[in-house]
Amino acid sequence: MTANGNDLAWLTISEARSLIARRQVSPVELVRAVLGQIERLEPTLNCFITRCDEQALAAARAAEATLAGGGEVGPLHGIPIAVKDNIETAGIRSTAGSKILADYVPREDAPAWARLRAAGAIMVGKTNLHEFGFGTTTINPHYGPTRNPWNPEHVPGGSSGGSAAAVAAGMALGALGTDAGGSVRIPGALCGIVGLKQTHGRVPTRGAMRGGNPTRDHIGPLARTVEDTALLLAVMSGHDPRDPTSRDVAGPPETLGGGTDLRGLRVGVPRDYYFALVDGPVEAAVRAAIGQLETLGATVREVRLPDHDVLMDGVDAIRAEALVDHEHWLRTRPGDYGEETLLRLLPLQFILANDHAKALRARRLLLERYTAVWREVDVLAGPTVPVVAPSIAAAEAKRIMVNGKPHGAGMLSQITRPCNYTGLPAISVPCGFVDGLPVGLMLVGRPFDERTLLHAAHAYERSTSWHERRPAV
Amino acid sequence: MTANGNDLAWLTISEARSLIARRQVSPVELVRAVLGQIERLEPTLNCFITRCDEQALAAARAAEATLAGGGEVGPLHGIPIAVKDNIETAGIRSTAGSKILADYVPREDAPAWARLRAAGAIMVGKTNLHEFGFGTTTINPHYGPTRNPWNPEHVPGGSSGGSAAAVAAGMALGALGTDAGGSVRIPGALCGIVGLKQTHGRVPTRGAMRGGNPTRDHIGPLARTVEDTALLLAVMSGHDPRDPTSRDVAGPPETLGGGTDLRGLRVGVPRDYYFALVDGPVEAAVRAAIGQLETLGATVREVRLPDHDVLMDGVDAIRAEALVDHEHWLRTRPGDYGEETLLRLLPLQFILANDHAKALRARRLLLERYTAVWREVDVLAGPTVPVVAPSIAAAEAKRIMVNGKPHGAGMLSQITRPCNYTGLPAISVPCGFVDGLPVGLMLVGRPFDERTLLHAAHAYERSTSWHERRPAV
Repeated sequence: MTANGNDLAWLTISEARSLIARRQVSPVELVRAVLGQIERLEPTLNCFITRCDEQALAAARAAEATLAGGGEVGPLHGIPIAVKDNIETAGIRSTAGSKILADYVPREDAPAWARLRAAGAIMVGKTNLHEFGFGTTTINPHYGPTRNPWNPEHVPGGSSGGSAAAVAAGMALGALGTDAGGSVRIPGALCGIVGLKQTHGRVPTRGAMRGGNPTRDHIGPLARTVEDTALLLAVMSGHDPRDPTSRDVAGPPETLGGGTDLRGLRVGVPRDYYFALVDGPVEAAVRAAIGQLETLGATVREVRLPDHDVLMDGVDAIRAEALVDHEHWLRTRPGDYGEETLLRLLPLQFILANDHAKALRARRLLLERYTAVWREVDVLAGPTVPVVAPSIAAAEAKRIMVNGKPHGAGMLSQITRPCNYTGLPAISVPCGFVDGLPVGLMLVGRPFDERTLLHAAHAYERSTSWHERRPAV
Repeated sequence: MTANGNDLAWLTISEARSLIARRQVSPVELVRAVLGQIERLEPTLNCFITRCDEQALAAARAAEATLAGGGEVGPLHGIPIAVKDNIETAGIRSTAGSKILADYVPREDAPAWARLRAAGAIMVGKTNLHEFGFGTTTINPHYGPTRNPWNPEHVPGGSSGGSAAAVAAGMALGALGTDAGGSVRIPGALCGIVGLKQTHGRVPTRGAMRGGNPTRDHIGPLARTVEDTALLLAVMSGHDPRDPTSRDVAGPPETLGGGTDLRGLRVGVPRDYYFALVDGPVEAAVRAAIGQLETLGATVREVRLPDHDVLMDGVDAIRAEALVDHEHWLRTRPGDYGEETLLRLLPLQFILANDHAKALRARRLLLERYTAVWREVDVLAGPTVPVVAPSIAAAEAKRIMVNGKPHGAGMLSQITRPCNYTGLPAISVPCGFVDGLPVGLMLVGRPFDERTLLHAAHAYERSTSWHERRPAV
């Protein structure tokens, strides 16, 4: 690997895009640089379940030929992207991190990925995840744990751990993750990159997350800057008439203004729930970030979300939806599940329809709490995750320490989870380091108002340098 | 009651509106005429659980004073309207047809009714319904059966039987019903008037249908013409940020063009499900109506809705949602339910969350079948109800005859039910008589395309005279 190659792997999508457009970098060079980075780091980090080196190089050559021929190119022409392995890709196995789907080769691309590909993106591989996406650590019993580029003894977060770690380590310029409880934002925060879960319905989830929860599932982008995230989102967005959860709404902005002026933006800091269980140093970094928003001109006020914790207990039975896909496999192939997943799925059979219906009602009440808050503020701000990335050992022992007390890994999704029930858009941006590990600031926005959310995150990012640090791995 | 008074009670909303605007009829005269009709027919038909004669007259006098003062008036100024008793009305008890809520007096109007009232509508009373809306006959164990104005030995259909019979008998110029399985369209068809269930989300259902199914529930208008129905819909429509099922979409048309030209309209006649169980003479009337659409210029073709019957079985467990509100009362006041309702509710407790989640998946698949059909046609046409209104005796004995075979009253909602799961808009318009009892033609439209649906129904209505007949009661 040349130094030059490494430099190319660290380009943002936006930089790479304009270098390619000006013919200063070729798609083949760029893909080679990224594949070199994968070759070097994959033995340490284990980001991929399936690598696609050959296909990626072939696609890069085709992309180069198109450029040489003067053909029209899309906004992601030649950009190397990693795709989480529970997102279906035509002709390439899509395991969902499971043994059950280890040999499953879809015939069609999921529309979210199909749109990136149609825009010129090149897939470098299918990334590792928590089995079926059911967890926050990416300690996968079948494909091994993915490791955090900032400290390989630590988890990258999950369930999109492979996607986040790959982007953080220069093994892709951007990635697709999925988020049913925080699975894009959590690893985004713990790996020091940007992760976005847009409003439910904006990006079709068809062809992804088999065994998931249609009411909670999202496919979301991971990238190293807010600008790149916005670009990926714009390409992925749009109505899919074949996906009943997909909504026909105006698209999000493709590009963001350059300013860092946040005057007029009203930021709410929830008094309830968001800061109830957060490790001291993480809270300090997040409070400082909120102070920075104020410095940029935003007004910051405390807001109430009454009964938020009770309502979050109330929505829990929605989990039972996962059985719809799994009941057949639980009956026929129970031994092919990891123990953690089995213990998560089997108890769902005892949840009653009435519990599920009540959970759907609690979800509506939860959404009402947020709707009330939008009269006072434009975005909410809080931590993405209560702690920095725990060590693999601590996660396995259920001894992730928050202010001196041990917790299981479920706690990692404590703060991200509500937006999966409300469908509200939320973004995590890097806002500091604790013990050399990244901290994420989460901003939550109004339904379909990704514009405001991205603007706020972009202004914050541009006024800080957290996103410029590189892991030493 | 003077003959003149009776004439006024038979005005359409549209006619009454322009007579009031031209000061040729006063709101007090109009309300008196309608109250006179109620006074005369209520002992026979039993349309109302609570009459509001005094409040209606007071409101009429106030409406008259506003006109006399030259004040600005809304599009329903002085129009007498009946409201189904499971729609909450401030200060007036709202029983939902139950003993359990017999003394429940809401503090707030449901938004759908609040909007009509703000437009000047005057409520003449709260109408009878099947207990909690759980049935199609309006044989109510606590408030007695409502009777069909075309033959008082027969049911009016349900669950909005009181609203439909009142409009059909000149006891209101229009009415609000609710529709969770056909409860607006069925009594609309069986009483010979127009009933509309608009797209799910267009009209907020907040403050109505306690003990219902949020995914299936709608509030819909009943009136004597398509034009009146469109006007009521336009006033009721609009986003309600406090109702999470409410959608923020462009409004439906308030007025309809006058033409009967249907050239360019593509009408689909489903080969599956819609005609699978229909009594011969009803089918003949409906096929003739479809022929009339063709005469008006529409192209008619047969369409397929594969697996429709299997998918309708699949969605059944969604019923379990009703337990959310009822479980407390089932525990504390089981004896206050009618037997039919009790036998409907108690078995719901054995439905699992997994069944419910599978039913929600079946609902998505059902919607996909319709989505596919919209590539070929603009509306679907079929019967609203498989039979004309059965006698009360036949309904009670579960001997409603369809082509010589006996059925229970659940069969009355067979054809209307799918649109409650898909959320698609559907309208019933009068299209004939069998044994002196009315037949309804149902048209189903694309999501939020009430414009096309109303246009087709209006053109059909204007080219026929079925809607001009009056019951002899």
